[in-house]
Parts: sequence; C-alpha cells; structure tokens
Amino acid sequence: MIIVLRAGASEEEVEDVCRRIAAMGYAAHTIRGTLRTVVGAIGDDRGKEGLRALESLECVEAVTPILQPYKLASREVRHDATEVRVGDVTIGGRTLVVMAGPCSVESRLQLLETAERVKAAGAHVLRGGAFKPRTSPYAFQGLEDEGLKLLAEARRETGLPVVTEVMTADKVDAVAEHADILQIGARNVQNFPLLRKVGEAGKPVLLKRGMATSIQEWLLSAEYVLSRGNPNVILCERGIRT
Amino acid sequence: MIIVLRAGASEEEVEDVCRRIAAMGYAAHTIRGTLRTVVGAIGDDRGKEGLRALESLECVEAVTPILQPYKLASREVRHDATEVRVGDVTIGGRTLVVMAGPCSVESRLQLLETAERVKAAGAHVLRGGAFKPRTSPYAFQGLEDEGLKLLAEARRETGLPVVTEVMTADKVDAVAEHADILQIGARNVQNFPLLRKVGEAGKPVLLKRGMATSIQEWLLSAEYVLSRGNPNVILCERGIRT
Amino acid sequence: MIIVLRAGASEEEVEDVCRRIAAMGYAAHTIRGTLRTVVGAIGDDRGKEGLRALESLECVEAVTPILQPYKLASREVRHDATEVRVGDVTIGGRTLVVMAGPCSVESRLQLLETAERVKAAGAHVLRGGAFKPRTSPYAFQGLEDEGLKLLAEARRETGLPVVTEVMTADKVDAVAEHADILQIGARNVQNFPLLRKVGEAGKPVLLKRGMATSIQEWLLSAEYVLSRGNPNVILCERGIRT
Amino acid sequence: MIIVLRAGASEEEVEDVCRRIAAMGYAAHTIRGTLRTVVGAIGDDRGKEGLRALESLECVEAVTPILQPYKLASREVRHDATEVRVGDVTIGGRTLVVMAGPCSVESRLQLLETAERVKAAGAHVLRGGAFKPRTSPYAFQGLEDEGLKLLAEARRETGLPVVTEVMTADKVDAVAEHADILQIGARNVQNFPLLRKVGEAGKPVLLKRGMATSIQEWLLSAEYVLSRGNPNVILCERGIRT
Repeated sequence: MIIVLRAGASEEEVEDVCRRIAAMGYAAHTIRGTLRTVVGAIGDDRGKEGLRALESLECVEAVTPILQPYKLASREVRHDATEVRVGDVTIGGRTLVVMAGPCSVESRLQLLETAERVKAAGAHVLRGGAFKPRTSPYAFQGLEDEGLKLLAEARRETGLPVVTEVMTADKVDAVAEHADILQIGARNVQNFPLLRKVGEAGKPVLLKRGMATSIQEWLLSAEYVLSRGNPNVILCERGIRT
Repeated sequence: MIIVLRAGASEEEVEDVCRRIAAMGYAAHTIRGTLRTVVGAIGDDRGKEGLRALESLECVEAVTPILQPYKLASREVRHDATEVRVGDVTIGGRTLVVMAGPCSVESRLQLLETAERVKAAGAHVLRGGAFKPRTSPYAFQGLEDEGLKLLAEARRETGLPVVTEVMTADKVDAVAEHADILQIGARNVQNFPLLRKVGEAGKPVLLKRGMATSIQEWLLSAEYVLSRGNPNVILCERGIRT
Repeated sequence: MIIVLRAGASEEEVEDVCRRIAAMGYAAHTIRGTLRTVVGAIGDDRGKEGLRALESLECVEAVTPILQPYKLASREVRHDATEVRVGDVTIGGRTLVVMAGPCSVESRLQLLETAERVKAAGAHVLRGGAFKPRTSPYAFQGLEDEGLKLLAEARRETGLPVVTEVMTADKVDAVAEHADILQIGARNVQNFPLLRKVGEAGKPVLLKRGMATSIQEWLLSAEYVLSRGNPNVILCERGIRT
Repeated sequence: MIIVLRAGASEEEVEDVCRRIAAMGYAAHTIRGTLRTVVGAIGDDRGKEGLRALESLECVEAVTPILQPYKLASREVRHDATEVRVGDVTIGGRTLVVMAGPCSVESRLQLLETAERVKAAGAHVLRGGAFKPRTSPYAFQGLEDEGLKLLAEARRETGLPVVTEVMTADKVDAVAEHADILQIGARNVQNFPLLRKVGEAGKPVLLKRGMATSIQEWLLSAEYVLSRGNPNVILCERGIRT
C-alpha cells in the first residue's frame, strides 16, 4: 500500500504515519519526492482494511493499493488458464464451447424439441432456466423444481450437459443434483451467501458479470467461490449498462 | 401496448397482427399514419409478456408499452405519499428523518457510545450493520447474530428505533425480531426471493437503490415487497455508477 | 407521435389535446383503452418539437415517438448497406478492412517506418494523428500541419490511403487536401458545426462513437454529415464508459 | 509516479527500470515489498507521458500516478475558493447565485418578458441560448447573432448580466461582446481548441460537465482555460449518464 501525504505535510506528520503503519504490523518506507512525500507500507495487506483507514488523517491525500485484492483468482496463484471439464466438454481450452437453449423451460415439449435442435446444431451444453429472476413480480417465474426434472430428462435424451441458474442457497443442492453447471445470474453476482454456498456444492459454477460490475469486483466474487474450495469457476461476460 | 409496424407493411400483415392481438385477449385498434401503421392493443397487460413477443414478427418494428409495469408502487393505486411509522418517527412526512450510526457494529462499546452520540445529535433512527455484504471474502463480514443483540441493547438504552441490513431469507425472522426496519442493500435490490421474504415479515423495509438500477426496476423491486402484503417500503436513493 | 393521457383525464382534456394536435397540422386519432386514453398524432414529425411540448400539459402522462428521428441514416431511405470506396479499398463490403498506424505522428522516421510495416502486415489504410485531442493541456498536441505533410509522404511511399483526425472547422480543408478519410474523434461526435463542415468537404468521414453516445445520438450525428450532401459516413464503434 | 513490478521480476529488470527512469530525468527509488518490488520516480511529471510508457515493459505490472495531472485547477496553486465577479454578482461566494431564463432565445417578446420575470423572481443572471447544440440537424438551431442582440437588449432593459453558450471558436469574440459569461456546453467540454479560445477572451467561462466526464477530465478542461490566462472558470455540474 502506498500512502501519499499532502503537500506540505510536516516531519511530525510523516513520522506519525510511519508509526501507525508499524503498529499495524507493516514496515514503513518513506520516499521524499519533489512535490509529495509518500510512504510505502510493506507486507501482505490483501483483504485487510487497516491501512485504508489512514485516508481519514488530515495529512494523508490518498491511500493507493499495490496488490490486487484477490488471490486465488489471480494468475500468481494459478499460472495456467483454468480449464473446467464437464463430461466430455472442456471449457476454457482451445475449443470454443457453445451453450444454447431456451431462456426459460416452459414445457416438456418445448424443452426436448429445443434440446434436440441444440444438439443437432453442434452446441456442447444445454441451457435453460427453471428458476427465473424476473424484474416484475407479475412475470412468469419459471417452472422451478418441475423445470429441473425436465432439464434432467433432456440431458438423458441428448447426452448434453446442462447449465441452469440457481437463485437461492436452499435450492443449491437440488440444482446441483440435476445440473452439470450451476449458473449465478447477473443480479446475484454479489449475493455473497449464495456464492459461498455454490463454492461448496462440488459442481462447476458459471458466474455471470453483473450489470455494472467492475472486473475487480467480478474477480472478488469468483474469489468467494474459489475460497470455499471450488476451483471450477467459469466467468461469463455480458453487456453492461452505460 | 402500441405495436409499430415497419414502413411498407402489407394489409395482410396488419390483419395478422390484429388477429394475434385479439387471440391474446386484447382489442386491436389500428391507426394508419403517414409513414407507419400502428396498432394499439387495448387491455391491462402489466406483467404479461405475450404482446412483447410480437416484436419477433418480421413486419413489426417496435412494441411500446403505454402503462408502467408496476401497480401497487404507482400513485394510481395509492394516491397519497407513503408515510411509514416506526415508533414515534414518521418517515415520508413533512419532517426530514435522519438515520445514523456506524457502518458495521464492531463492538459493544463502539455501538453504545455511537448510539448515545447519534441520539444527542438529534437523529431519529440508529443504523449499524450486523451482516455486511463485502466485496472481498477476506474482509470482516460483520458480528452477525451477536451484532443483532448489540443493536437491540442500543435500542433499549437510547430508545432509538433500529435499521439494519438483512442479506438472506433465513435470517429475516431473526433480524425482524431485533430491528424496527429491515434494510435491503444495494447489491440485493434484485434478490427477488429475499424481497418476497421481507414482504411477509411484518416490518417496514428500507430498499436501497442498486449500483445501476433504473427507477422502473427499483419500483418493480418495491412491488415485490408490496405485493406480499407489506405496504411499508422506504426507498433509499444512493450514488449510482457511471 | 403517441400522446398518453393520465388515468382519469376528462373528456374536455382529451378534446383539448386533440385540438392542439390539429392546430400543429397533425391529424388526431383517439384510442380509449382500459386504463388510459391515448391519442395518436398522424404526420411526419421528425425534427419538429411541437408535439413534445404537450408533455407539459397537466393531463398528459407521456409523449412517445413512433418514428426514429433520423432520415438519411435510416435503412428506409438507403435500403442497402453503405459501401465507401477509398482508392482500391471498399469499406463496408464483404472484406474486413484494417486501418493501422501510430496514435500520433511523432517524426518522419517513425511514421515512414511504421507505414511500411503496416503495409507489409496487410493492412489497407494508414492511420496516424497530426492533431491530437489531449485531455491535458500539457500533453503533446501533435505535429499539426507538419504531421499532415508527413502523412501525405507516407501515402506516396506506400500507396496506402490515409485516415487522420480533424478537430476544427478551419482545418477541414487542409486535412481534406492530405488525407483520404476525415476522422471525427469521440470527443467531437456532437461537435455539430464541425460535422456540418466535414459534410461539405467531399471526402469520406470516419465518425467515432463518443464515450457515452447512444446509438440514436450517433446516427443523428451521422445525419448532420449526410444532410450536407456527403453520403460517405463510416461509423467506428469504440469502448464506451460504464 | 510509482512503477509496480510484476511478482518475480529479476534484479536485472529492476535495474533496467531504474536506469530508464533516470534517463528520463527522474530519480529512482526502490522499495522491495513482501510480494512486489515498486520503484518510485521522483520529480514533477504532470503532463509528461514518458513514465507511463514503462507500462509496456514485460516486467512492469502497473504505473500509478501520485500527483493529480492538473496544476492551476488544484488547491495547491490557488488555496482559496475561486470567486468570479460579474457586475454586482459574485459567483462562488457565500451567496447562492441563480441563473435563469429560457432554453433558447426564440423571439424578442419571449426573451424580454421572461427576463423581466426572472429579475422579479430574484434571480441574478439571465441565461438563454442563441447558438443551440441540437442532437438533430432538423431541430431549431437558435437565432444565432440575432439572438445575441436580443440578449444584449434584455441586459440593458433589466440590468441582469447574461450567460450564453458559444459553440465555435470563430464566434467567441461576438459572444464575448454581448454576454457577460461564456458558457461551454456539455458536448464541448473536451473541445480543446474552443477551450483555448475562451481562455483568451477576457470573460468568465461557465464550463458544464459533459455527459460522461470524470472529475479529473473536467478539471483538466478547466486547466485548458486557466492555462491561457483566464482565472475565472465556473464549474457547472449536471446530471450524467448512467
């Protein structure tokens, strides 16, 4: 972490900042620049908030992190590209994987017919929503558990693995039983209790980017899943709001 | 709903659109303009999706709603401004209500001392987070149930009503037991199962706007709460991302 | 234009709206819906603002346009995809066209060497900035007229057509003399006097999307160029701010 | 400027970065952290781009500025709040200043009548557009020079100072002759040649924030005006796009 002092900070103020840094267990290292004095706080501060609080000191202009706040989601921990295997399909390898299917599972006929066509067209994974996050409470909310069973049937019929959204922690087990990949929708990208739960479900997680999620926030949401022991996170980009 | 046909749509196409509208139970009313023919579909289509699907017809340029999609959140249903009473405090009346307190409940001492000062400064409601939605899994996640008890103690000591965030459906009852107002945080503004649950909790709900939530989406989230029988929704504006 | 009246608008109010529509030269056509009365104003209102003003009437809820506000930029006027020919290159046809080169023209050596490599790599058009719109007044602002001459020399040497940005109306002629395509940068996408001027310059215009420009605004900026008699507008998408 | 090296950067790479920093005229200062080595480049680099280019080195993870890039717009150069005097009105002092008037100057009658009412209502400055930046080329573009004369007449009649927009460098003198404050509209906030020109016009400048302009960009646009010798810049906030 780099602590930038205001122009004209006094020697006492610099020393005070250094003392506070040391008291939090970091080594302080001062650089006196032409227009500013900056103090580097040496140590691993990822996920810790103490140094940030220095920003409230009168003499501090800014506190700037050097390290990215995620660990497991970074290439430093995992040097190679993540490959997620689902049946015979490898997501994240050299081959582009297409997941296709209806927005909602609406009926047995609709799903089975669509699944056959999805397979015939060469896609690798069947998608379809049994639980639908709807902006309006008056809109169709999905076939729910019945939809899960239809997805499982479509999988048996076609051999295609299935990805479907899970919206609540109490349905993670049911969805994990019928689906091959658990989808977290854009609106739940920062639903942290849900992320923790799918991190323990033993199935790959497809994590959609939220409407206005920064890359850093998105990777930290992945970190929630990864830090529960689930290494199989698939990041799914989407249009964002402007 | 107004269905705008493409320039040059044929008479058969206009008739086909009208037939489809009628088949969905609406009355079709055609206006032939100078450059476009438009068809009005007469009837209450809020929350229904059928007419929207006409947009996939080759001859249709756009489908434009006339009605706002929310009902209970509109002034048509509730003519007067909503006033929410919490103890002696009225939110939404002529008097500005200030809710103050720490971001997180960190300790008994911190909370009780802050609560006294909040009261002395003239604020009306005590806020403080027991469950904290944190971008990073490594950050402090709140004192949780222990924090709720401290909030209840601060309420007893000061007489101030308490507002605190609830993040999961399974904690709604516990939070409702100790708090006077249930806060839904910005990241959960479209966590629909949670909205439904707080709609049944019998306590006022403070609904924060999400990072990139449009006004219409926000009111539809309020509609989730209202449609479960809870008329006491407080909308809390916040900075949005640009 | 569709004028939506508030719920409960009286018969007199509906008639008043119709009278005002007629007075502006449009035909009024009323549809009485289940929950709202709407009035269609029939006629070509593109670019006219009169009907919009009805929104200020107490009894009007919304005024919704039916027509897109652009004409020449629409497929209704120009049915086929636009193809812009620059020397032997056709932009907008079946072949992807690559325009490459340095951000700024910095020196003769830098530009000529880069141009040779751009050509060797198979790109079709040479780009390079002589006039640079810089966020900071202290940053390098480009070689200006000297840069234009270097671009012309690079064109002679390589045979590649040249695209370069023009920032002010008084430099349009000079840029048009040396370049094959006039670039309008993202920050000038709504610099309307400049758009008018390049609309009269007789050279194709590459119009970059602005930081936060909607598609409709972008097409209207194209309309500024097109309506001055220049049919050769190339739309250049770019990342937008979120 | 702080140069953050990648994890595992070799001793040779650190030395290479230091050498490059020294070659650009800055003093290099190395801090070896637990997980990263960072090098501080000491010296005033505002508006210079050299250090930024280090980001293209394989061994560099990020280049982070310490100083804000503006000088004259910062409180370091001008410690006190800016007060702009226009006739008897002081903008930026303790008193809130209201500038009111029609969007466009449409006619003599409209403007004079509005100006009288603006004055009667207690506003301090008359606004009104003679040159209008219109999204559509078919919309009314303002009365232009004729509008300027009407504004001057309204000023004589009411004694109110006048603010009006200037859109092109070649009209700055004409607008400065008739108006007391030159307005730069949101769409021109990064029209740098225009900013330079109003920086030399000897009249206060009201600089509107652009649709998606960051605070830093906005202050740098102010810096364009300030650096031309005009200290009287009024920043005018506006809704931004989300």
